[in-house]
Amino acid sequence: MEKYDLIIIGSGPAGLSAAIYAMRAGLNTLVLEKAGVSGGQVLTTYEVDNYPALPGISGFDLGMKMKEHADKLGAKFQDASVIGLKTADNTAQDTENAYQTVLCDGAEYQAKGVIIATGAHHALLGVPGEADFQGMGVSYCATCDGAFFRNKEVAVVGGGDVALEDAIFLARICSKVYLIHRRDEFRANKALQEALKQFENVELVLNSTVEEIKGADSVNALLVKNKITGEIKELSVAGIFVAVGIVPDSDAFASVVDCNEKGYILAGEDGRTNAAGIYAAGDVRSKQLRQIVTAVADGANAVTSFQEDTL
Amino acid sequence: MEKYDLIIIGSGPAGLSAAIYAMRAGLNTLVLEKAGVSGGQVLTTYEVDNYPALPGISGFDLGMKMKEHADKLGAKFQDASVIGLKTADNTAQDTENAYQTVLCDGAEYQAKGVIIATGAHHALLGVPGEADFQGMGVSYCATCDGAFFRNKEVAVVGGGDVALEDAIFLARICSKVYLIHRRDEFRANKALQEALKQFENVELVLNSTVEEIKGADSVNALLVKNKITGEIKELSVAGIFVAVGIVPDSDAFASVVDCNEKGYILAGEDGRTNAAGIYAAGDVRSKQLRQIVTAVADGANAVTSFQEDTL
Repeated sequence: MEKYDLIIIGSGPAGLSAAIYAMRAGLNTLVLEKAGVSGGQVLTTYEVDNYPALPGISGFDLGMKMKEHADKLGAKFQDASVIGLKTADNTAQDTENAYQTVLCDGAEYQAKGVIIATGAHHALLGVPGEADFQGMGVSYCATCDGAFFRNKEVAVVGGGDVALEDAIFLARICSKVYLIHRRDEFRANKALQEALKQFENVELVLNSTVEEIKGADSVNALLVKNKITGEIKELSVAGIFVAVGIVPDSDAFASVVDCNEKGYILAGEDGRTNAAGIYAAGDVRSKQLRQIVTAVADGANAVTSFQEDTL
Repeated sequence: MEKYDLIIIGSGPAGLSAAIYAMRAGLNTLVLEKAGVSGGQVLTTYEVDNYPALPGISGFDLGMKMKEHADKLGAKFQDASVIGLKTADNTAQDTENAYQTVLCDGAEYQAKGVIIATGAHHALLGVPGEADFQGMGVSYCATCDGAFFRNKEVAVVGGGDVALEDAIFLARICSKVYLIHRRDEFRANKALQEALKQFENVELVLNSTVEEIKGADSVNALLVKNKITGEIKELSVAGIFVAVGIVPDSDAFASVVDCNEKGYILAGEDGRTNAAGIYAAGDVRSKQLRQIVTAVADGANAVTSFQEDTL
């Protein structure tokens, strides 16, 4: 089995930044990606306006440019779904056991160090109908699926940046957008809140939760409960976009590295986890701010820590 | 006096990223810059190949693009040389004293929060002749001044990334490049070390220090001492490029915020210093890795911390 210096699991901005730094550092590096395409959550972001030097770039373009950057430096990518990790036996001398082993569906890869940059995925509402109508009116990505709902009525659920971005994106396409949020104010940034006000076809449904998603072949209505009055009303919509947060993709590593109560891998700015030679970078790491800028910083820091640890 | 939500001191990548995040957050923000031009050290970097999505961009272009990004979002810039900082009196109620006051040459500005993103500058060799011949053969920026030495013999001093980048840049222009380093190996990344080997006109002068810079109207020779043999030899050169590290620009704030022994402002990943409402971002902050990617992350984190602290 070929042994690498470094294996990077995941190729969103954190993994791609790590790949760029690793290639420039002359490390024999393998990047594993399960999605068939690199870029991570950025790919499904309509517009990115906070990656300095590239104002207003589409998320898809930004993801592609980062991948091309890593390609240009010669990074090696492999389609693989990682299911576990066996850490190195530090007492072993130059044997198979002296390496970290990344366990995949049908394959294993070994390296001196592993950077976990698996990111996070969208949280589910967990209400009746959600699973039944996935892809038939229930979506987690307005950028991907919004165009299917042109001139139709839709709902967005959530109160953060993504929910408001989705509502604005859909307001340009759809006849009507209900923005359903369980609180009476949004945690989204103020620029987004201001931008949202320009759209007369957006109706706020605050202090409310979705109780059920109804339909026949596809979604045709939601049952929405007002948390204050207890009233339940039915909204006729052809689609519902769920934007209620993210869940870290750390399950495959939870037996090897310490995670916090939300499942984020515990690691400081330097990316070092409690397991020697295992690093966390990007949205999967416990930290204050999950953004593209912090993901690319994480990738660089994790490679630097690996280099220092293996000198 | 107009009072701002946030003042950002410095407009390299950290300050510009902070400006971008602050504008998107709807904060009334002022950016102070002493250099007359934004971009910081990036401006004088020949090629930047580790800012993901923009492979091989010139440092000057990257700095300009970041500035244009902040401009596009409406950030307000002011030429100002900051000489000190008076922290807010948190017991004061809505008076002048309740704000942070940034003291400049001939002006004062007030805000609820201040992000120090003043970066760092090049360290000096501290040898005879260095000050006398600055701009007449002594340079701290190969990208800026290299072209003046076309087909001449020059020296680069240092062993880090910048020193090797400078040597490679100059090897393409100059007839000969001496790379003088006090140790017998370089701490620069391996990709640079490999790239350097391609240039036959680069001569390594290891285990050696510059003792004196000599000249008449301009530099014409260096005295170089071999640390092992004690031998001193004279190298005929028309120019010397000093790349021996950086010094944080924290002097104006040292009485207000805690710094480490090298002068870097002590602050974690979130940018919070020991003084309430004062944040540090970018190269001036104590951290593992000083890079453009970590600077832009710092800017975003500092704004986020300020927002959380002032909710």
